[in-house]
Amino acid sequence: MTAGTRRCIVVSTLAEAFFYADHGFDDILYAYPLPFDKVARCADLSERLTLFHVLVDNITALEELKKWPLKRGKNWHVWLKLDCANGRAGVLHSEPAALQLALAISESPGVELTGVYSHCGNTYSCSGEEEIRAVAQKTTNFTLQFMEKLQANGIHCPRSSIGSTPSCSHPVPDMAQLSEVHPGNYVFYDAQQLMIGSCKLEDVAVRVITRVIGHYHHRNQMLVDCGWAALSLEGGGRLPTGYAIIEGHPDLKLLSMTQEHGRIEPISGKLDYEKFPLGSLLTLIPYHACATAMMHPVYFIHSDGVVVDTWTPTRGW
Amino acid sequence: MTAGTRRCIVVSTLAEAFFYADHGFDDILYAYPLPFDKVARCADLSERLTLFHVLVDNITALEELKKWPLKRGKNWHVWLKLDCANGRAGVLHSEPAALQLALAISESPGVELTGVYSHCGNTYSCSGEEEIRAVAQKTTNFTLQFMEKLQANGIHCPRSSIGSTPSCSHPVPDMAQLSEVHPGNYVFYDAQQLMIGSCKLEDVAVRVITRVIGHYHHRNQMLVDCGWAALSLEGGGRLPTGYAIIEGHPDLKLLSMTQEHGRIEPISGKLDYEKFPLGSLLTLIPYHACATAMMHPVYFIHSDGVVVDTWTPTRGW
Repeated sequence: MTAGTRRCIVVSTLAEAFFYADHGFDDILYAYPLPFDKVARCADLSERLTLFHVLVDNITALEELKKWPLKRGKNWHVWLKLDCANGRAGVLHSEPAALQLALAISESPGVELTGVYSHCGNTYSCSGEEEIRAVAQKTTNFTLQFMEKLQANGIHCPRSSIGSTPSCSHPVPDMAQLSEVHPGNYVFYDAQQLMIGSCKLEDVAVRVITRVIGHYHHRNQMLVDCGWAALSLEGGGRLPTGYAIIEGHPDLKLLSMTQEHGRIEPISGKLDYEKFPLGSLLTLIPYHACATAMMHPVYFIHSDGVVVDTWTPTRGW
Repeated sequence: MTAGTRRCIVVSTLAEAFFYADHGFDDILYAYPLPFDKVARCADLSERLTLFHVLVDNITALEELKKWPLKRGKNWHVWLKLDCANGRAGVLHSEPAALQLALAISESPGVELTGVYSHCGNTYSCSGEEEIRAVAQKTTNFTLQFMEKLQANGIHCPRSSIGSTPSCSHPVPDMAQLSEVHPGNYVFYDAQQLMIGSCKLEDVAVRVITRVIGHYHHRNQMLVDCGWAALSLEGGGRLPTGYAIIEGHPDLKLLSMTQEHGRIEPISGKLDYEKFPLGSLLTLIPYHACATAMMHPVYFIHSDGVVVDTWTPTRGW
């Protein structure tokens, strides 16, 4: 995913930042509104690495950083989080507070304004490429306009970034004016991205394999050994095929799950139990790969039908 | 929870069974419809422990056990899973197949019919004690009637069990005729059990502590550092207070979450930001403790405000 480089990665937890730092990565952006209990650990990474970046969207967070000056002549590398209509974190792009915060960061001793960061999570409510590109364009416009405003006010800020898997899957030409993008889910893709229009079914690189453990003729259902403990409840069963796509069986629906059980039934008609004997396997394409991947203590990496590696995800914060 | 004994416990994954076996527990029931890929590991536990029990609800599973005779003169200890109107796993109590399966188990060499197991997960759609007791009574009746049928047919079966946290929190007198019950969630309880009527708020023994990381006056919201990665999406936001109860703040709602972010807003009126400064803590009572607990790599056990232990949950299968 990094084409061999161990630089320029974005993480959403500090546990992930430490994992990468401990494995030879550098230039890591902790792209999360700075939780004040984590300043000491961020200082540790800032002093250890050539480049470690934090993200702020308010003056109080900046004050917390200034209370903790870095050793070894290092500066805090700060990205300003800009809200370009996503409505999650970030100072609103249209508010005077945004420029005031940028100015305060750039004028603080021991602190550098490294970049402007905007996340267009609002692409997740899009349907199709046209809508995705419209959100990508709007987010890019607001971000570039803010970069111009910084320049006009003599505020130095070398980098800019927008992201989300849908927008980066269907980028608009103006995104080339940004210094970087930061999608995450594209590593796997999933049924949700398929519904949004970010990818095709053959792009989805994650599966949960499950086993048939029960036949219940009287209610036209079978049970599989995959509950929300292995798949998560993301999507709320909204897919035409319920909580997942059952690969090769578009006529089946993952109707409901409890912790360790999943109920499968045909979308219509009678279930042909002979096609799904007890002990046989079904392959699920998750609704949201991020949520499903989180549920597993190990990932099996395969190539040409052979497991070539296992990966252990980093958990916690 | 076991009052000091290390016997008579029920697990829903084989990973949990091995965890307990490795820590001196014995008499463990793997109360899950036997997945055929796990027969070898079940045989291992059956041979190692004084008592290890498996659960079946179909003849094919019994045949799989018989293909794997136990060493050291051991017998497979098998519970018959009975569906008493819950509609998940189990052979339907009213079907002739239930008695046929019991007979087949009891007549199989190397296999013993140890118990009848019914789970009344349908108590989760109850509201209040009266409805809970009605389901508990019905499940108990069906189970005891089935036990009588076994006796009438000369089939030896010493144990019987029903369960679910709601039914075991409000047991009916006839449940005393069962040899055991098997609730799980009661270890913690949660907002869901509160809504069902299983417990009071003060019975809930699990919390997620979260920190305020953003103030967004223009949309009357604040952000906290708890997303579904720390709470799960269980409940779907159906509580009057959204995805959780915010302890001490019945006027606040956990409106939505993404992986690492939670949006909080007042149920009505303007948010008083001075009461919730950036960096301050809020305490969340989860909707479903089982789902929330699964999201955490460690639990902090506290008493009188002091952390006295940490627990690492067993994951995987």
